[in-house]
Amino acid sequence: MTVKEPIQDIAHLGAVELFTPKPAESLWYFRDVLGMEVVHQAGQSVYLRAYGDYALSTLKLTEASQPGVGCISWRAYSPQAMERRVAALEQAGLGLGWTNGDFGRGRSFRFNDPDGHVMEIYYEEQAYEAGDEQRSTLKNLPSKYPGRGVGVRRIDHLALLSQDVPRNRKFAEDILGFRLREQILFENGTKEIGSWLSNTPVHHELAYVVDIKGARGRLHHFSMWVDNREDVLRAADILTENGIFIEAGPSKHNNSQAFYLYSYEPGGNRIEIYSGSFLIFAPDFKPVTWNEEERAGGVYWGGALPESFIQYATPPVETEKADTVVPAFDPA
Amino acid sequence: MTVKEPIQDIAHLGAVELFTPKPAESLWYFRDVLGMEVVHQAGQSVYLRAYGDYALSTLKLTEASQPGVGCISWRAYSPQAMERRVAALEQAGLGLGWTNGDFGRGRSFRFNDPDGHVMEIYYEEQAYEAGDEQRSTLKNLPSKYPGRGVGVRRIDHLALLSQDVPRNRKFAEDILGFRLREQILFENGTKEIGSWLSNTPVHHELAYVVDIKGARGRLHHFSMWVDNREDVLRAADILTENGIFIEAGPSKHNNSQAFYLYSYEPGGNRIEIYSGSFLIFAPDFKPVTWNEEERAGGVYWGGALPESFIQYATPPVETEKADTVVPAFDPA
Amino acid sequence: MTVKEPIQDIAHLGAVELFTPKPAESLWYFRDVLGMEVVHQAGQSVYLRAYGDYALSTLKLTEASQPGVGCISWRAYSPQAMERRVAALEQAGLGLGWTNGDFGRGRSFRFNDPDGHVMEIYYEEQAYEAGDEQRSTLKNLPSKYPGRGVGVRRIDHLALLSQDVPRNRKFAEDILGFRLREQILFENGTKEIGSWLSNTPVHHELAYVVDIKGARGRLHHFSMWVDNREDVLRAADILTENGIFIEAGPSKHNNSQAFYLYSYEPGGNRIEIYSGSFLIFAPDFKPVTWNEEERAGGVYWGGALPESFIQYATPPVETEKADTVVPAFDPA
Amino acid sequence: MTVKEPIQDIAHLGAVELFTPKPAESLWYFRDVLGMEVVHQAGQSVYLRAYGDYALSTLKLTEASQPGVGCISWRAYSPQAMERRVAALEQAGLGLGWTNGDFGRGRSFRFNDPDGHVMEIYYEEQAYEAGDEQRSTLKNLPSKYPGRGVGVRRIDHLALLSQDVPRNRKFAEDILGFRLREQILFENGTKEIGSWLSNTPVHHELAYVVDIKGARGRLHHFSMWVDNREDVLRAADILTENGIFIEAGPSKHNNSQAFYLYSYEPGGNRIEIYSGSFLIFAPDFKPVTWNEEERAGGVYWGGALPESFIQYATPPVETEKADTVVPAFDPA
Repeated sequence: MTVKEPIQDIAHLGAVELFTPKPAESLWYFRDVLGMEVVHQAGQSVYLRAYGDYALSTLKLTEASQPGVGCISWRAYSPQAMERRVAALEQAGLGLGWTNGDFGRGRSFRFNDPDGHVMEIYYEEQAYEAGDEQRSTLKNLPSKYPGRGVGVRRIDHLALLSQDVPRNRKFAEDILGFRLREQILFENGTKEIGSWLSNTPVHHELAYVVDIKGARGRLHHFSMWVDNREDVLRAADILTENGIFIEAGPSKHNNSQAFYLYSYEPGGNRIEIYSGSFLIFAPDFKPVTWNEEERAGGVYWGGALPESFIQYATPPVETEKADTVVPAFDPA
Repeated sequence: MTVKEPIQDIAHLGAVELFTPKPAESLWYFRDVLGMEVVHQAGQSVYLRAYGDYALSTLKLTEASQPGVGCISWRAYSPQAMERRVAALEQAGLGLGWTNGDFGRGRSFRFNDPDGHVMEIYYEEQAYEAGDEQRSTLKNLPSKYPGRGVGVRRIDHLALLSQDVPRNRKFAEDILGFRLREQILFENGTKEIGSWLSNTPVHHELAYVVDIKGARGRLHHFSMWVDNREDVLRAADILTENGIFIEAGPSKHNNSQAFYLYSYEPGGNRIEIYSGSFLIFAPDFKPVTWNEEERAGGVYWGGALPESFIQYATPPVETEKADTVVPAFDPA
Repeated sequence: MTVKEPIQDIAHLGAVELFTPKPAESLWYFRDVLGMEVVHQAGQSVYLRAYGDYALSTLKLTEASQPGVGCISWRAYSPQAMERRVAALEQAGLGLGWTNGDFGRGRSFRFNDPDGHVMEIYYEEQAYEAGDEQRSTLKNLPSKYPGRGVGVRRIDHLALLSQDVPRNRKFAEDILGFRLREQILFENGTKEIGSWLSNTPVHHELAYVVDIKGARGRLHHFSMWVDNREDVLRAADILTENGIFIEAGPSKHNNSQAFYLYSYEPGGNRIEIYSGSFLIFAPDFKPVTWNEEERAGGVYWGGALPESFIQYATPPVETEKADTVVPAFDPA
Repeated sequence: MTVKEPIQDIAHLGAVELFTPKPAESLWYFRDVLGMEVVHQAGQSVYLRAYGDYALSTLKLTEASQPGVGCISWRAYSPQAMERRVAALEQAGLGLGWTNGDFGRGRSFRFNDPDGHVMEIYYEEQAYEAGDEQRSTLKNLPSKYPGRGVGVRRIDHLALLSQDVPRNRKFAEDILGFRLREQILFENGTKEIGSWLSNTPVHHELAYVVDIKGARGRLHHFSMWVDNREDVLRAADILTENGIFIEAGPSKHNNSQAFYLYSYEPGGNRIEIYSGSFLIFAPDFKPVTWNEEERAGGVYWGGALPESFIQYATPPVETEKADTVVPAFDPA
């Protein structure tokens, strides 16, 4: 018997664009409270990076009438890998076409996931080169630890809402090569509430979770990494002292085992400060599934995520389109 | 211009065999002090795993007259990936032949690295299935946190001494597909003191460091992961209270940025308890190099590793064969 | 103007007795899960200590039909200090008389607080002398870190329910010399919901919180210290893996700023694993007060303590005697 | 038999004055790197506090030709306690006379310890009142966590060198009421190398260590507290990235069990960032002693403090007056 070889064409999540109706306040949140650095400005956008990000920019804040997620950029493992994925995307009819690449990136191919989120794939990327002011005494650190605010180290992952989780999950697996790690499956495994996927040993780089309002293209949260749980606890103090609403945490997720802290940046997007979790190296890792009963206990140490964690996403929707009530779950 | 695609055939370090002249004491160290679990015994060997290891066994302790490293097992990403690597190894004249696989693993191909360390590549692996006693309340954790001793989570990496670092480093890159991450290069970059390599986003799974005694096939250290630096500090207390000699740490490495703690297990092998470090996702990561001057400052926060860190390895050698003095360095 | 000098006669909380209807299970909780050591057994009681407790015993578990708190032992600062407090207690009509002292303690004077909790004051105390097995390599540590379970370091404080908080608080201040640190005062400061007091720079050794069921002599919780927040997080994993119900936390209190984790030991008593907080050295520290509005935000980082935290105490009461509804508050 | 009652007249270390020949750089170190706040300036002095200090000011930096320690201020527990200590100091012939008190403190009595260090005792102290900018959302925190630099929480203790340790130690015990906690005693207990003392349950507020250069009135180090060991590790990164020389640590002391990190502020004074340790509540705590053999193992986890830790103090001395070589020890 011959088994098809797994796809290994996407290297990692490269950058995320967030829309914000309050650009100055959002910038303050990411720069002064989270401790990121501004590297570029153009038009209605500001480009940032965290001190441990090797790329020139990993977060783009763009002024818009509504919060939400803009373009999600995935880096290919090689030029050939990019071409293979572009071919697959075009065959799937999801391609939007090539661009010259956003700030710090080369030629990029834009596409939609089935839910309508905008993504792109690219290979060429400009590495960040620290000036004297930012250079670390550690040669292997792209810039020095800022000692300002939370001090997030790097971007980590994002969770997208979708009308049809299995369709988007299959797209991520079959067209992009993501590996499935965990799932919440209700109604005897027939109702896929959420799926967590990754192209790397990191537990998940992408999650698709059902949009209980029946909308499309929305963002549940975007996550930034800190190196340890004490940093997450310290972040909770810093957010609180800065008047930032903490929606949930610090606490420990069941799926991913990660230590989380959710707040809303001033523009309205849910941002997670994230650490812990575990790495998955096994190529035949068997995805872990959770049913209604297993989720009923709430988060790992007990307690439950607040109702807003299910109800709120960006952009907000006026009319609820959901015709079925989805039982409580935790889109970690 | 076409660039050759990178090899992505090895998934991760699968298991390590250590030789020990004091099997009972070594077992006590790994089971009672580090908190690992015994899963199997056969002949002069005991098989263990850490609570977060997904495989049935990741560490094999084998009674021998001298300490040192036995077979190092690398897991292939797919059956096809295994065949490709076996072909490359045979072409390189380093193959030793197929075995039926050690406990918990399928058909395996043994080979030598140029320095004479014994390695093998395999694909099939038996996953650990916890019984009632070991089952975690977290479905994604292979067995529950033991709450005994240090509580190491999983195996992480190993550092091998070698007569000829560049030759072994090139072998790892060209034949096995490892990516180079950091190097210590002395004498204007002409003398390769050590090289750190990985097949995954983990900073390094394998290091080759020069054997200043000119011996072959020796082990510098084997590393086990804990989830945070507080666990490393706690481990230092536990090792001390158990009368285990701490050679160095807890402190922070320059290369890998990891938080380390080195002790000798009773059989004599140097074991590192390890956390922190950082992940490398970029497929074009430019290896970081350090010269004499940059290493002169010692470890990151100052201070130096003890002389034994350079001098001692397993098995010990009687006659020093080194004809050149190698300046001080830190084989992290 | 002459100001009366403050009383400084009580040195610290010396020991606590807990009643349990499930002595074997409670012993398992304190010994195997929390990592305490059994030092003595007599009658229906087991005596324990934590590895950092300097006294021979600090916790007594006594079999009883109902959970709850037994005798609470306070150590005097000197024999003279003991005599002064005994005189004041007798004058207040709260004395119960002298005993020869429980295991490890000299002559002790028993008394009631106004709510009916049983307390005693003593001066002579037997220090713990570790045998070879328990001796630490640190001469200033009474016994070595056990590396078993949670590894609580020492007893910290207790919170008692009372029918009449101001009366008991005034008793603690005037008769025993406790200093007031924080208060929850509702209804424009006229309704004293809870008061936190200490004889040492530790934030509180004793809290009196209103018993919303109108009962007397009950225990809200007993707290044990661990050295850092990572240990509290680790404890949450250990409790969960051992099937212990976590009522609240890990999270951060408003008052005391402490990091908390509440569980019920198998006998039913609420036990807190506790770290962080802050020390108060100022002799004129102005007590901090919180009103309804300030408490409405829940705990420090948001979220609320569960209803059981207000409703449940030991021993449980059948008939609710409270004739007024007390608004939600957090008896940290 | 009647035992004399212990003195309990000093409440805590209130403030420390440091001399610096580089006032601007020293200010940068304490304000920008350690994260303290400037509250006042007068003459050649700047007054600072840490975010958790309840007093208006706890550190005074004064420009001087040489680094070293200026006036050390101890707060009395009550006005009567102050008068008692003043009487004892005058009787001992060590009094220097009353002042109106430095910034934020009332009437103060200055005196010398036998080694010539300048100290004062006071009772009245102005509490810090945060403005809108500094006010914490926690009512029990004097000002909000700054999220800038190391973020030291409060001053902790100081270690003074002295020509004659037993004489100064006895002075602290007999005249001021300090309790002895640990000692390094060499030559069969006849040579007192260092003594650690406190007026509170904090392990030590004051240490006297032998000045191996035979000088008088010098400072070994001044310590500032952070809430956990992760903060100390984080501080090591921040110091390193700011080019501050780290002399020793982060690591764990034998005596006090504390987690330490020593650096030199730009003016030359040795500053410790400090956490961990343990509280001593027992009024009859038996001081712990260490001899040559017990100190030979170096610090708790192994390794040794650098030679400079013994040799360097402020102000530096030109001529070495020591006529005996003092064996290696660790003035923690």
